[in-house]
Amino acid sequence: MTPTTDQPFLFVAFGATGDLMQRKLLPALFRLAERGLVHRSYRILGIGRAKDFDDAAFRKSSAEALKGAGIPAGSPRVREFLAALHYQAVPDFSAASYAKLGERMDALDREAGLESNRIFYLALPPQAFEPTISALGEAGHNRARGFVRLVIEKPFGRDLVSARELNELCHRWFSEQQIYRIDHYLGKETVQNLLVFRFANSLFEPVWSRDRIEQVQITVAEELGVETRAQYYDHAGALRDMVQNHLIQLLTLTAMEPPAKFDAEAIRNEKVKVLRSMEPLREEDVVFGQYAAGVVDATDVRGYLEEEGVAPKSRTETYCALRMSIANWRWQGVPFYLRSGKRMPRRSSQITISFRCPPVAMFQPFGSCAVSPNQLVITVQPDEGFDLHFEVKAPDEPLRMRTERMHFRYHDSFDTLPEAYETLLLDVLQGDPTLFVRADEVEASWELFSPLLEPSKRAIHSYSAGSWGPPAADALPAREGVRWANK
Amino acid sequence: MTPTTDQPFLFVAFGATGDLMQRKLLPALFRLAERGLVHRSYRILGIGRAKDFDDAAFRKSSAEALKGAGIPAGSPRVREFLAALHYQAVPDFSAASYAKLGERMDALDREAGLESNRIFYLALPPQAFEPTISALGEAGHNRARGFVRLVIEKPFGRDLVSARELNELCHRWFSEQQIYRIDHYLGKETVQNLLVFRFANSLFEPVWSRDRIEQVQITVAEELGVETRAQYYDHAGALRDMVQNHLIQLLTLTAMEPPAKFDAEAIRNEKVKVLRSMEPLREEDVVFGQYAAGVVDATDVRGYLEEEGVAPKSRTETYCALRMSIANWRWQGVPFYLRSGKRMPRRSSQITISFRCPPVAMFQPFGSCAVSPNQLVITVQPDEGFDLHFEVKAPDEPLRMRTERMHFRYHDSFDTLPEAYETLLLDVLQGDPTLFVRADEVEASWELFSPLLEPSKRAIHSYSAGSWGPPAADALPAREGVRWANK
Repeated sequence: MTPTTDQPFLFVAFGATGDLMQRKLLPALFRLAERGLVHRSYRILGIGRAKDFDDAAFRKSSAEALKGAGIPAGSPRVREFLAALHYQAVPDFSAASYAKLGERMDALDREAGLESNRIFYLALPPQAFEPTISALGEAGHNRARGFVRLVIEKPFGRDLVSARELNELCHRWFSEQQIYRIDHYLGKETVQNLLVFRFANSLFEPVWSRDRIEQVQITVAEELGVETRAQYYDHAGALRDMVQNHLIQLLTLTAMEPPAKFDAEAIRNEKVKVLRSMEPLREEDVVFGQYAAGVVDATDVRGYLEEEGVAPKSRTETYCALRMSIANWRWQGVPFYLRSGKRMPRRSSQITISFRCPPVAMFQPFGSCAVSPNQLVITVQPDEGFDLHFEVKAPDEPLRMRTERMHFRYHDSFDTLPEAYETLLLDVLQGDPTLFVRADEVEASWELFSPLLEPSKRAIHSYSAGSWGPPAADALPAREGVRWANK
Repeated sequence: MTPTTDQPFLFVAFGATGDLMQRKLLPALFRLAERGLVHRSYRILGIGRAKDFDDAAFRKSSAEALKGAGIPAGSPRVREFLAALHYQAVPDFSAASYAKLGERMDALDREAGLESNRIFYLALPPQAFEPTISALGEAGHNRARGFVRLVIEKPFGRDLVSARELNELCHRWFSEQQIYRIDHYLGKETVQNLLVFRFANSLFEPVWSRDRIEQVQITVAEELGVETRAQYYDHAGALRDMVQNHLIQLLTLTAMEPPAKFDAEAIRNEKVKVLRSMEPLREEDVVFGQYAAGVVDATDVRGYLEEEGVAPKSRTETYCALRMSIANWRWQGVPFYLRSGKRMPRRSSQITISFRCPPVAMFQPFGSCAVSPNQLVITVQPDEGFDLHFEVKAPDEPLRMRTERMHFRYHDSFDTLPEAYETLLLDVLQGDPTLFVRADEVEASWELFSPLLEPSKRAIHSYSAGSWGPPAADALPAREGVRWANK
């Protein structure tokens, strides 16, 4: 079992009444407490602008939030958890407001014996990151007798310049060791398992290179459209919202060299090395798309331009496909095809490793095209697991191949997989930054995508909602005789 | 689909009223005919000593045999099949008897337009092989206008000398291309698939060597005791009955180099090369056992010496374990552990490939013994398939490994697997000798085991029926820190 965090703490949640707090953080915190994984002494201090809100109101809304997450109210454990919740109005970024916050934190410290261990979690819209961090720093909340940690949600910047600025601001007040940049994909069990899968299994590492691998595909497909997020999304697009963070994390974990140790710095060093080895993206290696009206799951859905909150002539991409290359000893010449889109036929996050064909001369009596390449499919969601597609002889037929699969599903072996946020929050509480994005990593990723961020330069291809993206995206791998994996 | 054999034929079955014919050959021949895989014009001529037997009696007993194999009598297809059965008494090895046989074959040829294509199948006890082959040859039945093929059941000799003599006799009358030495293990789907698995999958061949494989185990365990076969078995023993043929076939298919082509000669050349590369067996690399009374499947069973037909002080082994080595570039230093026994806890034929542990320094924070080696388990029977044991991260635990498996079962993907005898008989009809043992192969195998065949030199260890063999057999791999796989 995971060791219980051995220090008491105060969890200070900015954006306490927001969607992320209600849907993800509160249920995750409750489940960690319920499973006895956190120190008995803890308090959660919700921060919001609303002055007409208080502890009681916060507890009431939080009870609703837990209920919404399938945690029924009324049990002793839920009551105990709710009793640990408090609310503090911080209506502006003034010194006075942040001084008051300080007094409240000190009071809770004393009351509950929290040893001044503090986690500031910014569950805020991106434009609030900068003033909040500044105000925390200027009020001296970056230091305490205990530990102080700062957790920042995505997006971390919207290009290289803004990411650098945000890093500089963070570093003005906090050391890199105190900063936890969230990419919730890193909390997913299958993603964490990528490194174990690669390096604890002697069967895979020897074939994990250009010598044996033909091409790699990373797909993060959403069935949903822009939903209620148009205000943010229309200024972001698929490249910023998904590719620069989630897909790049999957890519670096797939491609990285074995770290010297399984510790945060060693692993993140190797991830940064991958990013620094990537060849610059060329225009012809990227295809942008935007969904038009179509049919998803047998339901008519409107196009992106008809969505509420989207600019009438928006050129924001809801789909992005890329061909990327890593210029190092392991990967030179192996294309990495990445794609992510909204309004795809189904929700699916997968990494597909296609191995080279065996020498076929041996099988020529049976037709050379009879042999399909082996594929390893790592499913991140839904139905997490591994599939290994391999060739078997079809019974009864002299030597005709058929592609079959060996498979492993987490849900067949483990009752429950922890939610990504449970994993990540526990890591924050334990002070383990392995699954968080380091400053140089986030900058290296933005640097890679810098040439693609200017919308005026892009062609945007339309695709029907419910399709796998624009035809131009098929042409991208087709240049090398490759097809997208799950079409 | 498999092409239908394109030539009519006469199948001449010596031992027509015997167990093998009734239980295996007749059902297999019927199923091939039922599935339309054989030429429409065929006849089956059963040969026996009994003179008071005729076509009608043979058809009647064959109908019973089919019923016993789950093929109900009375359908048009069964009637059609039975009508193709004939019986010829061949009471002795005289020229007269074999001349009469020739007349009968000629008559059936004319009647049914069989173009003098003939298969002689010797479903006989081993002592009858030699006189039957001689009589066939002296009567000139080794030649015909059409093809003539000779199928010989196991055991092919009982040591190197007798195997050579039998080969010489065969070759006096038949060319090697006409001779089909049966090892019914080679007809099993999983065994045939070994070569496809190895050479049509680019994932496995690169790791299939001493660089990546720690040790290989081949187990053929039977739950049954000697049953009604004591008369034969007590003069044979496990080494002759199972190891020298079936286990060695599994070993050579596992260890062989890729053949230049998937054809009979190329594949059998590579198998012989493995046998010729094997290091001589030393006394300390072999453990013999004999079952004592015990409990199998919750039933008390008697010991081997109490079995009917077994000599009172028999020193025949019912269990044999070996450590073998292949002195070539691929396998030098990789032990191959083989074992076979009667009265084991369950029926199981498996090949277990254990890969080397990954370098563990990386995982030291979690304890070096946390990583188990990958294993590939190929199940030949029952429940044919592949299991790949690999390490995953246990959810919720920082980086603790757990061994899980990916698996593939033939029965999940294919409705029915053909019986080994269906496969082998079809190959004989089609003239494909790939799955039959070549003269030099059988001799190389006997040569290897020659030093072990003298019973007086052996220690025989007792083991309880229902156990996995004598403790001395555990000590064999334990010398290298290895344990038998399915204990």
